Order: sequence, then C-alpha cells, then structure tokens
Amino acid sequence: MNQRIYLDNAATSWPKPPGVAEAIAAEITEVGAAAGRGAYAAAMSAEQVVANCRAAVAQMINAQAAEIALTCNGTHSLNIAIQGVLRRGDHVVTTQIEHNSVLRPLAWLQESRDVSMTVVPCDRFGFVDADAIAAAIRDDTRLVAVSHASNVTGAVQDLAAIGAIVRHHPALFLVDAAQSLGHLPIDVQAMAIDMLASPGHKGCLGPLGTGVLYLENSIQSQVQPLMYGGTGTDSDRMEMPAGMPGRHEAGNLNVPAIAGLLAALRWSAGNETEDSSGPLADRLADALAALPGVEVFRDRARSHVAVVSVAIDGWQPTDAAGVLDAQFGIQSRAGLHCSPRIHEALGTSAGTLRFSLGRFTRQAEIDRAIDAVGQLVGQ
Amino acid sequence: MNQRIYLDNAATSWPKPPGVAEAIAAEITEVGAAAGRGAYAAAMSAEQVVANCRAAVAQMINAQAAEIALTCNGTHSLNIAIQGVLRRGDHVVTTQIEHNSVLRPLAWLQESRDVSMTVVPCDRFGFVDADAIAAAIRDDTRLVAVSHASNVTGAVQDLAAIGAIVRHHPALFLVDAAQSLGHLPIDVQAMAIDMLASPGHKGCLGPLGTGVLYLENSIQSQVQPLMYGGTGTDSDRMEMPAGMPGRHEAGNLNVPAIAGLLAALRWSAGNETEDSSGPLADRLADALAALPGVEVFRDRARSHVAVVSVAIDGWQPTDAAGVLDAQFGIQSRAGLHCSPRIHEALGTSAGTLRFSLGRFTRQAEIDRAIDAVGQLVGQ
Repeated sequence: MNQRIYLDNAATSWPKPPGVAEAIAAEITEVGAAAGRGAYAAAMSAEQVVANCRAAVAQMINAQAAEIALTCNGTHSLNIAIQGVLRRGDHVVTTQIEHNSVLRPLAWLQESRDVSMTVVPCDRFGFVDADAIAAAIRDDTRLVAVSHASNVTGAVQDLAAIGAIVRHHPALFLVDAAQSLGHLPIDVQAMAIDMLASPGHKGCLGPLGTGVLYLENSIQSQVQPLMYGGTGTDSDRMEMPAGMPGRHEAGNLNVPAIAGLLAALRWSAGNETEDSSGPLADRLADALAALPGVEVFRDRARSHVAVVSVAIDGWQPTDAAGVLDAQFGIQSRAGLHCSPRIHEALGTSAGTLRFSLGRFTRQAEIDRAIDAVGQLVGQ
Repeated sequence: MNQRIYLDNAATSWPKPPGVAEAIAAEITEVGAAAGRGAYAAAMSAEQVVANCRAAVAQMINAQAAEIALTCNGTHSLNIAIQGVLRRGDHVVTTQIEHNSVLRPLAWLQESRDVSMTVVPCDRFGFVDADAIAAAIRDDTRLVAVSHASNVTGAVQDLAAIGAIVRHHPALFLVDAAQSLGHLPIDVQAMAIDMLASPGHKGCLGPLGTGVLYLENSIQSQVQPLMYGGTGTDSDRMEMPAGMPGRHEAGNLNVPAIAGLLAALRWSAGNETEDSSGPLADRLADALAALPGVEVFRDRARSHVAVVSVAIDGWQPTDAAGVLDAQFGIQSRAGLHCSPRIHEALGTSAGTLRFSLGRFTRQAEIDRAIDAVGQLVGQ
C-alpha cells in the first residue's frame, strides 16, 4: 500500500491541526466533567471551554458569542434552522446545489406542513444566479436557503448579492456553510445572513461530533427548538430558554470534541497565510482537464473551494475511486455526494469522482493524484 | 487543593476505562474518515467501528444490532422516541421522577399536538408503583415513558412489572435508561421494552457526545425521524430510509466518540465483577443518615443505583456543594438535577445535594466524603 493520500476533506478534514487530539484527550482524562451542570471547578472549566468555542466561532463570522449554539453536526444545525422557522403553508426558496441536509428536511415539511418550495436551478458548473433567486422570492416566502459552496463542484455562490436581495424581504436568509466555513471569509452582517449552519469538522478542522449554528439575535425566539431537555438552567420551567445558547443546546454537550474544535480554531487563527489548497485544487483541475476523456466540472473564471469533481469516459465513478484507493492509496469519493439535484445540471446521473483538498494537502500528493488518474485513462 | 474526589458520575462518568481516550485519539489521528460516506479502506474502517458499537450495545440489552441507532446524547435519543411516535391528541403516561429530557419534549407536544399526559406520582424515595401505572393507562394511551432509575434518589423502578402491564395494551413502552444502562441488567425482550434511550457517557463509561437508541424492529417505521439529511444511502430519494440505523442517523456520526464508547463497552464486558459502587453507595448512605441533621433520600429495603441525595439542616445544597469542592476537593452536585417534579415528593424545593458514584470510586474516597459532610454538620 502506498502512503495514504487523503482527498476527501469535503467529507471530513484530515489530518487535524496539532493540538486537537491532545485537547480532546486532556478534556477526557483530566477534566471529565459535563458543562453547565455543576458548580465545582472542573465543571466550570468545561463550561469555559464551551463559552470560548462559541466566542471563537462568532469571531470568524462577525457575530456575537450569544448568537452561537454548538450542535452535533451540520445536519443538526440545518434541521434546527429549517424545522425551527417554517410554519404551515410557508414558501421556501432554495437551490439545485443543496445537500440532502437541506433538501430532506424541506421535503418532510412539504409533506407535514404544506410548505411549498421553489428550487432555483444552477448552471453546469453549479453556480446559481442571484437574480434568479430574487425572481423566485414571493410575498409568502419565509426562508431562502442557500449553500455557500457546492460540495460537488466547489462553486462558490455570491452570498453578498443574495443577502442584499433577501435583506429587502421579510424572508430569513439561511446559509449552509458546510463547505466554506474555515475556507472562505464570511461576514454575517455584511452578507445579511440571518442563520448559518456548519459542521465543525470540515473547514474548521475540528473533530467529528461538532456543529455550529448562528442565529441572528432578533430572530432567536422565532426559532422553535428541535430537541427539548435539560439545560442546567431554570430546571423547574417546562419551556426551553428563550435565547441562545440554551434554547438549542438541550442535553449534555460534547465537551471533549468542543475542546478539540476550539484548539483547531485557535490554530487556524494563528496560521492564516499558509493555506495552499486553493492553488493546488486549480493545479489538479487544470491537469485533469488536459487528460483525454476526463471532464472537470469547474469554471476557472469563477470562484471555487478546493473541491474538484470529474467524470472519466469509460469509468463508473465508484470503480475509479476503488482503483485509486487500492492501487494508489488515494482516498477520493464517488457518487452523488448526498446532493442529488445538482447532477441533473452536470449531466452526471451516476455521480462524480470527487477530490477534495484540505489545509494539509501537499503538492506532491496532488501530483501523485494527477499521475494516477493519468494511468487510469492510459496516459 | 486536595486530590480530586469525583462524585458526579450521574452527570457523566469519570474517569473513563483504560483504552477509551486512546481509541478516540487513534480514530482522529490514524483513521480520520467519516463513516458510511466513502469506499476507501479508512472509511470502511470507520463504518466497522460504528457497526461494532451498535452490536455491542445490542448485546447489552438483548436486542439486535439492527434495532440500535447511535445518537449525540441521551436527550437526542429521547426526543427521537417521544417526538417520533406521538401524534395529535395521543395520551401519555409518565412519572414524577422523570428528567426534563422526558418532561420538556412532552410539554412541547402538549402545546403543539394536543397530547395529554398523566404523571404517575412516586413515593418519598422516588419509587413508582407499577399498579398506579396500570391504572393510568387509557384506551388512547400511545406511550408509557418511565425512567429506569431516578437521577435524584437512584430509586430503581420495576421495569419487568411495568413491561408486563404495557405488553397487554397497544401503548409503546419507552425506558429512559440514562442512570441504569451499564449499571443494571436490562433485557428489552423480557421487560417488553419497545424503545430505550440512554447516553453513552454515563454507566456505559464512554465519552460525552454519544447516545444510544433502541427501537424494537416492528415499530421502526412508525417512528418519525427528528432530523433529516444525508445518510450516504439512496441519496436520490427525498425520504429518509425506512429502517434503522439510517432513519435516525442523519449527518456525520461522531466516529471518534463512538470508537471510545466501543472501547468502554468492551472493557466493561471483560471486567464485570469488579464494580463496588453499589455497596459503597450503601456505605455512604448509611453513614450520612447517622449524622445529625442529614436526611438521606433512600430506602435501604429497595433497589437503588449508586446515587445518594441528601438534605442537610441549615445548608442550601449549592452552598454545601461549594464548600465540599473548595475545602475538600469533593465534586458533588446540588440543585434540582433537571428533574423538577420529584422534589415535590421529596419535599426538597431547593433541590438536593447529590453524590453519584461510579465504576472507579474507591472506599477511601467515600470515607473522605463521609468525613467532610461530618465536618459540615459539626461532627
């Protein structure tokens, strides 16, 4: 087996920055307490880790710490936002690039709450026209839900333009930042974002088991909780707290993983200039596009995160991924990537073969991947 | 500061068994992949860890692995079960000992789905009479939700008797095993349990960020998911999978924590005979009851898990816990413990001071705690 070349960072980032595994281990072996549930020193230390992590997330997106809740994963955050604000008969505008973590909650609300939905199409690279979103918004539109970057093609949507449109309507603007938080600058105020959801283990470089949810201050009480339970506060009241974070943090938080996420965010804040995944993704895309029979779903003239999806003549994506893993130690991913609708625009009904780069991807690895795909197509 | 004496195991267990922190660290540093999302070897290794963990949980409770979903925490599991089965107008039977992770979801469904509720009282030690549960069940009762053991007094309910009653009604029997799984034998078949929810980080000795949910095979399709999202399977379908585990495992699983839970369950299976927390809890309860002005909420003639709640004349529970921590290094917990209703039966409107023992609690620590409380009351 060749040395592992991990190109599945859009699923979860690997490796983690120095200090992340250690922060988790220290929380488990030395602190060990639940957050917000006791008054002894270890419990207060756990609570402080959680508060620091909320503050670090807030700082990344120009929000306040009191606008952040920590969740289990990005899907959890999205379900809180989507199920929490849509009422019977509401209309939603969303896009063709969305992940099932947006589409499936919406499908459930179509069935259970008579929610209606307009899906704005993307072009053949996964870009959505902001004007088309503007045209889709109706008087009864309650929510505009848009992924910042496609997890299939990496296409980056113009959030500032979309935010400027939604700002003039009563609808709430929800951003799925699963593929962008930690990779791209996000300013919830400048972009007029009302709600933002992301996992903590992708671009934020934290561990699995973490998610973040931003809810703008003035809308918090409108967002009905998804889970109800103990919050360590006002235990004799049957209602969940009205505000963040307690309203959306029922039950025991995953303190060790949150400590890991905090360590990752602090590492990233101190190492901002060293990310070469963007140029490396361009290098990979250009080289693959030059191979015969390889189609790359990327538009060099526009902005992408470090995700490169391809189709290879004569190869099922899953077969290609299997050979790349077995023969070259290259870990990519094949299929629909849980984003079924974008493939209609790409013409990839069997899915794509996807390479997703990360903070620690090196040029030598990309060159190995280029060489391996070259061998697949006989070059 | 004295050496730490951790007596808050009912909140979360500490320390963890040997191998748990190591299993988590290994998953993060060596495997690093998401489960169920890729075909490369590391992703399949992550998937195997998850499958093994489901199987280990199933074995503990005499269930099948296909009846187990892994969740974020016990509250998550309870919310799936409670919100998933109750329909508009249903009736629920529950008890006075329940935690807010049961009471608050039910309160929300009273408001949003016109669910009605009968709360069966407990006695002054936290025991609920099975016959009283039988009397409360009506023709329209859809759910009987009972905590196996009180997190305030440790009182163990007679699940076999309750299960034998519910078995003859159409209602589903939900057990909150937060304080019992890993401490007491549970047989979902012998006890006629339809749904069981528990965190993985209490008696199971796993890390925070883990929860388990058992749903008996024949009822799985009746349980509406709480979260909708990617499952890595059937990505072009808008419905969640009909069966476990995918139906209730949307989004990325917390694979490192699940690896830690698996390590903990395997350790426990190989070290079954060494748990002395029960006798030590009795020792603590007896010694505290002998002190002047100390009331212990425990009935020696009946079964308790290793939780000892007390009231001390002249001391607010929070003040006593603060002094025990600051002066004696004893980490206990004070307050309502997120279980507000039981305090009406105990007459403890300001809550109790709670000591909860764990697998690694030693006699010398208990004797120190006895001595410390003795000093509080001037003995």
